[in-house]
This record gives sequence, C-alpha cells and structure tokens, in this order.
Amino acid sequence: MAFTGKQLTTRLDADGTLTVQIVPKTWDAPTGSQVLVQVEATPINPSDLGLLFASADTANAVYSPGKVVAKMPEGATRAMAARHGMDMPAGNEAAGVVVAAGDSPAAQALMGKRVACVPGTAYASYAYAEAGMCLPVDESVTPAQAASSFVNPMTALGFVETMRLEGFTGLVHAAAASNLGQMLVRICQEDNVPLVNIVRSEEQVALLKGLGATHVLNMTEPGFQAALTDAIHETGAMLGFDPIGGGTLAGQILAAMEASASRGAAFSRYGSSVAKKVYIYGALDLGPTILNRAFGLTWDLGGWLLTPFMAKAGMETVGRMRARVARDLTTTFASHYKAQVSLEGMLEAAAVAEYNARRTGEKYLVVPTA
Amino acid sequence: MAFTGKQLTTRLDADGTLTVQIVPKTWDAPTGSQVLVQVEATPINPSDLGLLFASADTANAVYSPGKVVAKMPEGATRAMAARHGMDMPAGNEAAGVVVAAGDSPAAQALMGKRVACVPGTAYASYAYAEAGMCLPVDESVTPAQAASSFVNPMTALGFVETMRLEGFTGLVHAAAASNLGQMLVRICQEDNVPLVNIVRSEEQVALLKGLGATHVLNMTEPGFQAALTDAIHETGAMLGFDPIGGGTLAGQILAAMEASASRGAAFSRYGSSVAKKVYIYGALDLGPTILNRAFGLTWDLGGWLLTPFMAKAGMETVGRMRARVARDLTTTFASHYKAQVSLEGMLEAAAVAEYNARRTGEKYLVVPTA
Repeated sequence: MAFTGKQLTTRLDADGTLTVQIVPKTWDAPTGSQVLVQVEATPINPSDLGLLFASADTANAVYSPGKVVAKMPEGATRAMAARHGMDMPAGNEAAGVVVAAGDSPAAQALMGKRVACVPGTAYASYAYAEAGMCLPVDESVTPAQAASSFVNPMTALGFVETMRLEGFTGLVHAAAASNLGQMLVRICQEDNVPLVNIVRSEEQVALLKGLGATHVLNMTEPGFQAALTDAIHETGAMLGFDPIGGGTLAGQILAAMEASASRGAAFSRYGSSVAKKVYIYGALDLGPTILNRAFGLTWDLGGWLLTPFMAKAGMETVGRMRARVARDLTTTFASHYKAQVSLEGMLEAAAVAEYNARRTGEKYLVVPTA
Repeated sequence: MAFTGKQLTTRLDADGTLTVQIVPKTWDAPTGSQVLVQVEATPINPSDLGLLFASADTANAVYSPGKVVAKMPEGATRAMAARHGMDMPAGNEAAGVVVAAGDSPAAQALMGKRVACVPGTAYASYAYAEAGMCLPVDESVTPAQAASSFVNPMTALGFVETMRLEGFTGLVHAAAASNLGQMLVRICQEDNVPLVNIVRSEEQVALLKGLGATHVLNMTEPGFQAALTDAIHETGAMLGFDPIGGGTLAGQILAAMEASASRGAAFSRYGSSVAKKVYIYGALDLGPTILNRAFGLTWDLGGWLLTPFMAKAGMETVGRMRARVARDLTTTFASHYKAQVSLEGMLEAAAVAEYNARRTGEKYLVVPTA
C-alpha cells in the first residue's frame, strides 16, 4: 500500500540559488520498527529555519505558488558546500496519526494512534518515524498541542539537567519570553531552580511576571547591566543560555556574573575564580558575538545543542525527561502560535517574512492537511 | 636582623590616578618556612603588566625619577574598585640568593643558595618566598637564566597537560614566537605533540622554523585561513591557546577547526560534532573578542589561568612539571630579553613605552641590584 501527498524540499545550488518548494511524493508502507505518520501539525522552529532558508535573501526572493527562489550570500553558499544540489526535506518535529506500521510489535502498537514524533521530514503530508521515538498522546490532546513536544520541551529540560551535571545552581536565560522560555519558567518553578529571565520589552516582562517569574529584566532599559548583576547576585545563577548569539549579550551576562562574584572580594588582577559559563544555543542574531572581556580569566562560552547533550546525559535521564513531557504536555510544556498555515501557505511571501524574522511570539504552525 | 632596600608599588586611587613608584623599605628576618631572597633578576611578564599599569594612559603620563603618574580610564578604574588606595607590590617571579631563612629545615636548607621563586613582590631589593615553592638552581645558572622559571615554563607545560586532561591530541598556539611560544615548540618536539604555530611576521616564521617547528603560519598573509585549516587537518589539533584575546583570531581558529572537521563529512545544519576548543590566556589586545560563529554549535571558548589549572591538575602533576623545568632550565625553558633595567630604569618613559606594548621579542628583565 502506498500513500500519496506532498513534501517540502529545500535545495541550495553551487551558484547560490536556494529553491524551496512543495513537490508531489509517494510513501511506501513502512517496514520493521518504523511507522508512517500522517502529519497533522508541525511547528517552524529556529532550528528548522537554518536548513530551510539559512541566511538567504528572502526579502528579494521570487515567490510563486508552492515555490520560493532566493539568493544565498556567497560565504554561506561556500560554507554549505556539502548540501549543494540536494533536495533536502525539512521539519524536525510533528504530531500526527499513525496510518501504517512496520512488523515490529512496537510499531504495530501505535497503529491508529496520535503521536508526537521527530522525523526531520515533517513538512509533508506523511513522514516516517521510529516507533521508539514516538510519544503516543491522549485522545483529548489536539495536534496543535502535541506538535512541539520534542525540540522546545527537551531543550528547556536539558538546560536544567546541564546545570545539575555541571554543578551550577541557577540559570540566566536570554530571549526568555519565547515558547521555550515560558516552559523554562514553569520548569524552574516546579523544580525550585532560581532563574533570571532576560527579555526585550515591557510586554514580555509583563508576560513572564504573569507566569509568576521572579526575575525578569528588560535588556533595552538603561540600568539593565546593574539590574542583571543584582539578580545574579541574589540567585547565584552562574550558568546562562543565550539563543541570540550575535551581539554583546553573552559577554554582558559573563560580566554581570563576574561583577557579582567579585562583590566584597579582595582585588585580583585575574578576576574572580568562581566558575561562570554561558551557552549559545541558537543564532537569532546571525551577526558576530562580541565579547568585551570584563570578566577575568575564569569563564567559559560554548555552543549547546540538544542531540549531543542527550548522548552525554544518557538513556535514563532522557527517558525521565520524555516521561515528564508526556505527562505535562498541555500545561508545563504548552506552546502558542501566531498563525497556522498550509504547506503552500508556508511559502507565501508575507508568511516567510514574518516567521523567518524569528521574533518572539511569532511562531508559525504548519498544518499539511489544510 | 633587618634588610633595607627599595620596592616598587602601584596604587590606583578612586579618582583614576595611577601612581607607580619606587619607595624605601625594610625587611625583617623571615620566620617559619619563609626565606628572604635578595632579588637579582625579575622579568616583566604580560601577567605583571595587568597589575602594574593595566590600561592606564602611559603615553601621556608624568615621569619623574622612580615615579610614574598616569590616568586610568573611568571604566577600568571602576572595575578595579577593590584596589583603590592600596600601595600594591608587584612582580610575580624572580631569581635571587637566599640571605635569611626561617627556622624550618626546608628554609634553612636554602641559606646562601640561588633560587628561582614566585613571591608576587619581586620588583624590590628583597622578597619573601615560601621555601617549598623555591627552586634551587645550579651554581652555573645565572640570575638571568633562572628569573623566568615559573610563569612561562609552567604555562607552556600546562598547555600540554590540559590537552591530555581534556582528551585532545594536538595544539594550536597564537603569538607563538614569544618566549613562551618558543618553549612550547621545544616541549612539543620532545613530547611528539603536533603543534600549529601562528605568528605575525616572516621574521617570526623564520625564528620558529629555525627551532625546527613544522607548522608556522603568518596570520598577516593572504590565504592564512586556508593554510590554518590545512595545518589543523594535517595535525588534528583541536585545542588552541590564544594570548591575544581581542580581535577575530580565536574565532578564526575555531572556524578552521570546524572546516577541517567538516571535510568530506555529510552536511549538517548544526555543524560538525567534533569537539573544538580555544582558551584565551592573556590580553595582548585589550579590545573585544569578535566571533564570527562559522563553527556550528559544538565549540568552546574559555579563559585559562595557571593557578586554577595547577589546582585542578594536582600536586603530582605539578611536581613533575617543576622537576622538568629545573632539569631543562637553560635549554627547553631558556628565555631571551631585549633589555635589562634597574628598578628606577623600569619607570623611565622610553622603557615603559617599549615593554608595556607587550610586543613579541621585547621582554625586559629587571635587575634590582643594578
């Protein structure tokens, strides 16, 4: 039995032309431990956009129904030589119904059920998924509620696990009003983890305060650096997570940690010896990271990514995290979307302009069945 | 019995005035496990300059015999509030003769001997030192040969130990023509550690090639980035040490590591999963560190400092490192100086202008007995 439908593909050619389009596709019946999921809802996360459009000039692209052709900058084209000429599917995660299953008992057990899954090919009518990676959800859970049950929830839980693994006792989070940031606020409340939230507007301050967050700082306000230092001093939060990447913020967080650690301490020309660390886990700002190194010589800045974290944390921890997500999917791990679009709607100029700007509170949900 | 002489002190006042001067001082006889060393030679290392002058405007300072008064920028003055109003001694390391000793057998055993030591107060006629931290040197070793037996040798050995501790198998070193860099070239030859040296001129290339270094790259040449990637690919060197700090170099090293790790690999939107790390261990350039993050999400940048490294490495490793320094002081760990000056000569405008510029090959040695 075969299933016919549509799939989004993205192709970068060596000449810098990026083509994102919806093409017809047929899926054969799955085998072994795989299931075939009819995709009902799939979010557009920043981690998807890096593959979908990367740094292509979508403002000056050519849009036709179900197709976008854009120009990629020369440096980025060169850096992505390994994908030249390949029509790549995209879409990390989704919710949908299992319409066919391989022979394995685990796959067969999922037949007809709604699951959350991580196929990596979710911008499509159907997607293959490993049965063991699927999360069956209750009848009462909608596709929209189940669509984002992997990337954001596991990342937010991963921050807290990383904190514990590395011996820190509090967190600083930038761009904290995002869906992920709101999850982190709720997780930290449940787990009694001190959290300093950094946001970019008074509306976002109000949003997080409304969730019961204690420390919410507006980085566009004068006095932000002093307020950040105070909040870090009060919470002892010496581990930060920053999805922005570009600009001075990561360095400002380290400087505030250093200023807190140095309070009342004797002068040291090398700075404090208290461990302080910031992880960059995204690239909302593709510009350079600028570190004004006012934080001594005991500091650390690194990249953070979910997959290697899970490999390091191990099966038991990951299993515990997934069980928590399944249990609290519609509460702690609830997501919000600005708009729902079809596969074709996803490639309209106005939609691309909005979701590709990666602004907080403007996340899109794709509904391939629409 | 008391010893009279002179000592350099540096004081930063809250109004931003930095006063570095030579003042008379009397040393009482040492007690317990301490010895009193008559300082014969003490180097001016970059790590000393951070305390001596920091970012003060030495070009427009007022120089009088044995005294410099300079203006510190406002931000730096504020950042160093913990040292306001204090006359602080300086000078990390020295060589000299033990002229008095406390009662402990270890101290008594050093009487009359020439030692290398790490008093932290070496810009003076005399300095107290812990007997256990003193390294007795052979009669045939001159003060100039013994003066730099701690900071640079232990730092260079510390790089190799850090590499082993963290599971890396090769090193990249920036500003590699320095005294420290030359030591590292010799250590890596002796230990068969692949080393990629980054320097800033053809003279420096020739200098390191003359020592037998295999990979020496001039960062001012066009094609540097490609050559760096090739050298990293050939050596597998995924750990870098950078004393410059400011500018784009640390990020360029990470980008070259990433480009090497991605060669021949399938495309990944998150970059390669190979661990890559750069430590910033100095601030030859006080400007911001600028990271053009073309190196995926598996990377790490941190500060490196000798003291916490030694604490982490443990007594046995540190003991082994010190024994090696003592054995090879005049060969592997030989240092070179551009000029020798007295304590007063150290505070003359022309001398300050030269050594405070921290240029490779322009290190000064202070001879307080001159």
